[in-house]
Amino acid sequence: MSKHILSVLVENKPGVLTRVAGLFSRRGFNIDSLAVGETDDPTISRMTIVADAAEHSLEQITKQLYKLVNVLKISDLDPKESVQRELVLMKVNAAPTTRAEIVETANIFRANIVDVSKNTLTLEITGDKDKITALEDLLKPYGIKEFVRTGLIALSRGRLGEG
Amino acid sequence: MSKHILSVLVENKPGVLTRVAGLFSRRGFNIDSLAVGETDDPTISRMTIVADAAEHSLEQITKQLYKLVNVLKISDLDPKESVQRELVLMKVNAAPTTRAEIVETANIFRANIVDVSKNTLTLEITGDKDKITALEDLLKPYGIKEFVRTGLIALSRGRLGEG
Repeated sequence: MSKHILSVLVENKPGVLTRVAGLFSRRGFNIDSLAVGETDDPTISRMTIVADAAEHSLEQITKQLYKLVNVLKISDLDPKESVQRELVLMKVNAAPTTRAEIVETANIFRANIVDVSKNTLTLEITGDKDKITALEDLLKPYGIKEFVRTGLIALSRGRLGEG
Repeated sequence: MSKHILSVLVENKPGVLTRVAGLFSRRGFNIDSLAVGETDDPTISRMTIVADAAEHSLEQITKQLYKLVNVLKISDLDPKESVQRELVLMKVNAAPTTRAEIVETANIFRANIVDVSKNTLTLEITGDKDKITALEDLLKPYGIKEFVRTGLIALSRGRLGEG
């Protein structure tokens, strides 16, 4: 079993997401994260799915995905040969006495402060999973009130497929 | 019909995503974007769904979502009272003669260059939809080779619910 990043181009039509997700759940795969949105062509969406799977199960699921109407292209992205990023928003408890510390920690991670209230700070951070986990661990003692992540997106590195 | 941002807390179990997505597709709603990933508690995931819906249809779908096992909480986030962000990776054609122009454009948008090859640049940008569309429009003439977006994630502004 190992982590796989599947990048799936699909036609942007109702029901496609359900059929793709259904294929994974019928086979008992838990999807770690899934992000889907339009590409630069609004009739086509790209789904990025991170799931734990053995190599042969993945081959089977890829074959079945191709059988679905509306699925155009599937790439199994090699983690070493792709750029991977995700975005997280975290709302953290911030009292007047702790606010400066939290801002300083955010700066070290190049996280942006995107909202401030009397008792909270909301931070935006992009990066890979390790970077996000490291920031999360440092902020936990203050109390994380809300946490939302996009799930990973990825593109193959540019040099691949070039002459 | 108007855009709604639904933030749905669910138990992190196989099949939950399929059931939630299925509910939308059976009612003929197209999901504009969907992002799902673990929260700071790995047993709980948060799904952020952007969909076009009339107010009364949304109420119905919310009721039905609550009937699903594994759905813990649903918030309909007001676009004016929430922080919204998404992350995009774009791979753009970049010849030696156009590279400097593209880097300059990226800097204006505070986009990061995350990969470089002989013929391409890969940019990472976070922001709201307008900012991303503006950068996309400026880069289109060079040729966008690949484009992946996470879909929107959002959190309510911190001052809400405070005393």
